[in-house]
Order: sequence, then structure tokens, then C-alpha cells
Amino acid sequence: MATIKDIANQLGISTGTVSKGLNGASDISDELRKQVLNTAVELGYTTKKMKKEAHKKLCLFIENMEYEKKKHFGYDLILGFKQMALKENWAIVVVPMNATLQLEESYDTYMLRNGYSAGFLIGFSLQDDWIKQLETTTVPTVLFDNYITSNPKVCYVGTDSFEGISLAVDHLFQLGHRKIAFLNGSPNSMVSTHRYQAFLDSMASNKLPARKELIEFGYYVSDCAKYHVPAFLEEGATAIVCGSDLIAKGVIDACLANGYQVPEDISVTGFDDLPAAQHFTPPLTTIRQDRTALGRCAYYALICLLNNISISKTLLRPILIDRSSTALYKNKNVETGDTSL
Amino acid sequence: MATIKDIANQLGISTGTVSKGLNGASDISDELRKQVLNTAVELGYTTKKMKKEAHKKLCLFIENMEYEKKKHFGYDLILGFKQMALKENWAIVVVPMNATLQLEESYDTYMLRNGYSAGFLIGFSLQDDWIKQLETTTVPTVLFDNYITSNPKVCYVGTDSFEGISLAVDHLFQLGHRKIAFLNGSPNSMVSTHRYQAFLDSMASNKLPARKELIEFGYYVSDCAKYHVPAFLEEGATAIVCGSDLIAKGVIDACLANGYQVPEDISVTGFDDLPAAQHFTPPLTTIRQDRTALGRCAYYALICLLNNISISKTLLRPILIDRSSTALYKNKNVETGDTSL
Repeated sequence: MATIKDIANQLGISTGTVSKGLNGASDISDELRKQVLNTAVELGYTTKKMKKEAHKKLCLFIENMEYEKKKHFGYDLILGFKQMALKENWAIVVVPMNATLQLEESYDTYMLRNGYSAGFLIGFSLQDDWIKQLETTTVPTVLFDNYITSNPKVCYVGTDSFEGISLAVDHLFQLGHRKIAFLNGSPNSMVSTHRYQAFLDSMASNKLPARKELIEFGYYVSDCAKYHVPAFLEEGATAIVCGSDLIAKGVIDACLANGYQVPEDISVTGFDDLPAAQHFTPPLTTIRQDRTALGRCAYYALICLLNNISISKTLLRPILIDRSSTALYKNKNVETGDTSL
Repeated sequence: MATIKDIANQLGISTGTVSKGLNGASDISDELRKQVLNTAVELGYTTKKMKKEAHKKLCLFIENMEYEKKKHFGYDLILGFKQMALKENWAIVVVPMNATLQLEESYDTYMLRNGYSAGFLIGFSLQDDWIKQLETTTVPTVLFDNYITSNPKVCYVGTDSFEGISLAVDHLFQLGHRKIAFLNGSPNSMVSTHRYQAFLDSMASNKLPARKELIEFGYYVSDCAKYHVPAFLEEGATAIVCGSDLIAKGVIDACLANGYQVPEDISVTGFDDLPAAQHFTPPLTTIRQDRTALGRCAYYALICLLNNISISKTLLRPILIDRSSTALYKNKNVETGDTSL
């Protein structure tokens, strides 16, 4: 067990200065305070105050995602996490994060200095400095929709993309669709990669060919749809599976712009079930991510990590929400007399 | 909410008889009691006594697996589960299961009649009657190493096979091995399928070819090794990844029988880290499944299901245990002068 003297020796400063650094005194430089904290992390030193605090506080960091209002994707994630944690007397602090803040201080130092025992990170990208640091962190940390190899202190929580895409494809197959296209989210995203593989698997399990002309990566915004939908329509797609509700919104608009009605001519499915999805025209058939349950699940995953149960991943079941943007394939046949698949 | 009268009406018997059935009275036939309980399950009826009991008892079923002694695979699984559950005042009943018992009573009826709120099933096979019933059960149920599609009341807990096999392949690659063979467990097992895919992925990520002559499914017993090892040796394998410690034991014996020393001529890795693995000759390099942590993790997964958090799967990180059954590839080169890969 490291002592204040160990930290002082390593830095070549007095134990009094170390103490000031650890306790956030104002009469030492920021630079020195950081060195003291970084060294304390490195040597595994914690003050009594830190230990006491450490049993009381969890931190939830959020980046690249709106969360302030009920309609935002992050809102229910945070709510679910808080609901479970507050019941067990944890204090929760929500900290909006960005790339600049991550450069100012390392993740471990930030957590130690603020007395957090564990973190829940939402919306981070693989390029983030803190995400890279998670490969070696000793702080129990749950990541939403991101995965770190091998570190037993870090785990990944998300919705099961394989089940989700399979629900969408099976639903369309049962409606008679055979030429099913897939407009995925951004490339280089773990979730998109899973959904791509899931689409191939689901098509195969329904004995349908997954034609590369009918599979595209876009981005997680509506605007990407207009670049891909015309080609899908030209190739004869009768249904389009989308990587998110926002993409689906863009796809519906692009179909209309090309003279196709949804769902009469083309069926469209989303992914997420954002609060807005039920108010789309037509109301969106989609794969619900139960975000409150995801937040709750993240809390249990953190508790596991805090108990030295090294989870690598915990996935939640998605739910098919069947609204009006999908319809029987025969609807089209009836109107056009086209019976070819 | 169903009442006793609903059950009585459905069966065409008196409410008094229903009551006797629900309370396990001795003056009605077993057959009628079962009908009453089955109907109660179907209608969603529970007695006050059942509800009260339901907050107190969890049931752990075990099949096809030894668990009575510390050296058995199931022992720590049960221990870990009990450790967490007893702390939170659950009573745990461990029930050895077999195919015949599963025919006598449905899973849901068994759970209701005995007042269990949730179940943890270990060692069941996909052919088991109860496993089939899990597709529609309403009882929160955690399965070890088995997976049921779509039912939000059932989840799967296991060790991350992808990380495990990748740890073994990476370890051998770093030791200089390039011709790596894989003797998997039984075909038609979910875990074997994952490990097969994981082997292909890990070889690819090390830019090694996965030659089909070097990949075989065996069975989860030592005896299977002798049928496959001679061919692996003939094909020039310098290392063999095994689907379990018992398979690895068989592989080591088969190597010796064919005049090859482990690890001097051939490196061998196991999977599980059974208590016996450290006493093999040579002590086995293997992928540890932390069975106590798996049991604890299963408990948390059950708590999630009881809180309507519909997990589909929770996977635990495996750990590479580096003992003496693996060695640098150059050892062989030195002895034989063979520098070809």
C-alpha cells in the first residue's frame, strides 16, 4: 500500500506538498497538483477522504448525444441508471464531456480526484483520448455501445443488434418482401459492423440473397438517405431496413421524392424507437432500444465490475414495434399487377 | 387478474377443489392438482402464499454436470451464485435434473408449485423438454451456456468464447507458432459454434490461414483426441488449441503416443482451467472460465430479469493462464533444424 511518502519520494517534493496536492489546496500550481494525483493513481494511493467518497459517488459522462429533454436519446438512459443507483444510496453526477476536457486530465486522475468509484460513458467515439485510456484503466467503467478488448475493469452495454436486425428482416419476410435493402449507419462504428453482419445472417436464415447493391453504409443522420435510396429503388427493393429512426425518416422522404409511397410501394423499418418515431408520416415500424432498461442494466453491470465480476458485455433484447411504415408485399402487386419477386 | 373462480370455471370443478389443488391438499388426485396448477399458470393466477414465497426462493437446476466436489466444473458456479443470493436473503434450492423429471411436470408448473420466483439452469442440452418450454416461459430464467431467441424472460450467461479463443491463438502466435490446429468440442453446441467462429476470426486477425485439415470438432471428453491428433501432426501442426481441458488432456496423451513431446514438439492449450489442469503433465496452459464469477454474474442477470430488464446475454472475460504446455516455436527448430513454417 503506497503512502504519501512514496509519492513525495517519487516526485522529489515534500510530504506537505503531496498532501496539498491530494486535498486540492490552492497554494500549489495546477501542474504540480496533477503530478501528485497522477502519481497517486500510478502507485495506487487513496486518502481516507477519497475512500469514503469513493463509496458514495458514480459519474456518468455523456458526449455527442442530446439528453436534456424527454425526446432525446440520452434522457432515458440517464434516467434508468439514476433510478437504480439512487435506490442504493449512490450519488450520481452527470458530466457533459468533449475532446478538449479529455486532453486536460487523464480519465483515472479525473475519477480519483473527484472521488468517483466508477464511471458510465455514453456517446464516446473510439477516437476519444479517454476511450484509448480505458485499455489500461483500473477504474470500473461501463461503456454504452463501445467495446474495449481484454481489460477486466471495463464492460460494454448495448442492445443486441443481431436480434434487432433479425426482428426487422423476419418481419419484412413474413409480409412477403424478398428484395430487402439495408441502409446502415456510419462505417467504422462497432454497432454498424454488428448490424451489417446481423443483416447478412438474417437474410441467410430466411434463405434470401444479400445483394451488395442493396446494402450501403450511410451516417446516423437523415440526410444520408438521398444518396442511396434512388439506387435501391432502381434495383427493385420493396423494403428498406434502416440503421436508425433518423435514417428511416430520410429514407421515407427520399422515397416520396422519387415518387414511391410508404408503405404502399416500399416498406421501411427504423432502429431505436425515438419518441418522435410514432409521429412520423407514416408512424414508423421500428426496433425499440429500451433506453431506460439499458440505463438500469448499465448500473447492474457497474455493480458487477465493482464486485470483481469481469463482464465483457451485457446485451439487452430489442423489441419490434409494428406501426404503419411496413405493409404486405401484395399491396404493391395489387396496384401494379407486378408478380415478379 | 385471474381468480380461483376463473380456474374453477375453466376446469368445470368447484372453487374448493381449485383451492385444494393450489394448496397441495392430499385429498385430490395428482392429475387434478397438476391441471389446477397448469391452469393457474396459464391464467396468471398466484395465491398470497405463492406471492410471499416467491420473494424468498430461487431454484438452481443442474444436469449433465458434476458439482458435488470442489474439483467439479459445477461446484464454483453454484458457490458464486449462492454467495450473492444469500447475502440478499434469498433461499436457494439446488435440484439435480434429468430428462424423466422434465417429462413429469412442465417448467412453469414446477416453479409455480414450489414458489420459486426465478431459475438458474446449468448443463441442460438443447434437446431437453424444459429448454424447449423456455421459448414461452414467463418465469425469469438464466441459462448457463445456452441461448433462447426472443423471450424477454430468459437470458444467457457464459464466458466470452471469442475473447477466450483469441487469447489462446494470440499467445501461440507470439510464441512463434504459425501452423495452429483446433480440436473443438461437440458439434451442435452453441459454445462450440462460437469457438469455431472465434478461431477463424483470431487466425485471420493474425494473418494466418485457417486450414480445414487443421480444424476438427470432437467431443467434450479426452477420448476424442486420438481420432484427430495423428492427422494434425501429419499436416505439420506445431500447436493445438483445444475446446476444453479434458480434450487437451487427451491431445497431450495422443501426442506422446505418436512420439511427440509437449511442449518441446507441440504446444497445447486448454479451455476451462479445471482444478486438475495445473496437475496435468505438463501443467496446462489454458483459458480460465472464472466459474465463481460466472455464478455471481448469473445472480445479477436474474436480478435484472426480476426487475424487467430483459438481458439477452451477459458474457464474462476469460483469462489466459500461462503454464508449461506451450513453448516457443524455436524450441522445435533447435532440435530438428527445421526452419520451415
